[in-house]
Amino acid sequence: MNYPNALEDLILHFMKYPGIGRKTAERYALHTLGKIDQEDLDDFAKVLASVKSRIGKCSVCGHLTDSDPCSICSDNNRDKETILVVESPKDVFAIEKLGKYRGGYHVLHGAISPVDGVGPDDLNLKSLWTRLANEPIKEVIIATSATQEGETTAMYIHRVIAATDVLVTRIGYGMPVGGNLEYADDKTLAKALEYRRKF
Amino acid sequence: MNYPNALEDLILHFMKYPGIGRKTAERYALHTLGKIDQEDLDDFAKVLASVKSRIGKCSVCGHLTDSDPCSICSDNNRDKETILVVESPKDVFAIEKLGKYRGGYHVLHGAISPVDGVGPDDLNLKSLWTRLANEPIKEVIIATSATQEGETTAMYIHRVIAATDVLVTRIGYGMPVGGNLEYADDKTLAKALEYRRKF
Repeated sequence: MNYPNALEDLILHFMKYPGIGRKTAERYALHTLGKIDQEDLDDFAKVLASVKSRIGKCSVCGHLTDSDPCSICSDNNRDKETILVVESPKDVFAIEKLGKYRGGYHVLHGAISPVDGVGPDDLNLKSLWTRLANEPIKEVIIATSATQEGETTAMYIHRVIAATDVLVTRIGYGMPVGGNLEYADDKTLAKALEYRRKF
Repeated sequence: MNYPNALEDLILHFMKYPGIGRKTAERYALHTLGKIDQEDLDDFAKVLASVKSRIGKCSVCGHLTDSDPCSICSDNNRDKETILVVESPKDVFAIEKLGKYRGGYHVLHGAISPVDGVGPDDLNLKSLWTRLANEPIKEVIIATSATQEGETTAMYIHRVIAATDVLVTRIGYGMPVGGNLEYADDKTLAKALEYRRKF
């Protein structure tokens, strides 16, 4: 071990992030020491230590939020008749960035995966059924990913809702198969929304 | 602003690091929230806030250290007759990783650059003259970078030491011109040490 303890510790913490190897982590640790002032580091430290307690899940849609219900659920200017179902909060951030969708969301926090032992009960689904019973929802757009798990989840939701008057659609055209929503470019995401089809 | 405040703050802090853009920072912020446990975050936060006070400069060689003198200067198994002069602590880490050099170091913390108003007095040089007067030094290997500033600094140090019995050498072969020591591969660094020439 070549680095002083505090630097080595910093390096190891940076290496816990996806795509950060030893060399990059060393660069970040030295950057921390030499280029970022103490006030910024104190603030960074405070946010790191508190972020988990400051951010929770919206009791309505399951999205990440620092107020409950979240700003999307409590926005009366949004279309209350449409719900977009996604696997993860990252997907909501990606679609919101696009700025073209004005309905609500429902975040499942996962997808059905028998191999990994993830069944419908492990997802944020019960609150979706409650919303369908109590809110004036006319369309549920399923935007789970185009993977085996995402398709299984879409199918499951469709089967449950099929018996009701609610229109169930699935985004489709434009999304590369096996790709993740969060990495799609704006145009692909817009196409996927535009070309959704009835289940 | 799409993200809850705590996440947005985290994103902005990650964006202060070299090469981290908005999209990568968003990924790291969500990774922090979802994939790193609270204990690790508390420790990461503690190290970030304390690293500047825990790491100082060695009073002998100027290298970054959490003890004074640093572990290299206080290691009696190292060759006390050779000093390798570098611009930055990163260079020491890079050469130590190589594991082939057994002498001491002297870290200048910069290079002479008239354009930027950096003169010899702004570098960690006075302590180098003191070491030359008091330690049994026979060779000073100058490993400043192959840039205008690095060459000027090498020349300046050579001019000062030339009048003494100390051998002044300059690493050379293998280092790409304009390149930084810290990004050189092991072989290039080894060659540069092996092929050093008398000033």
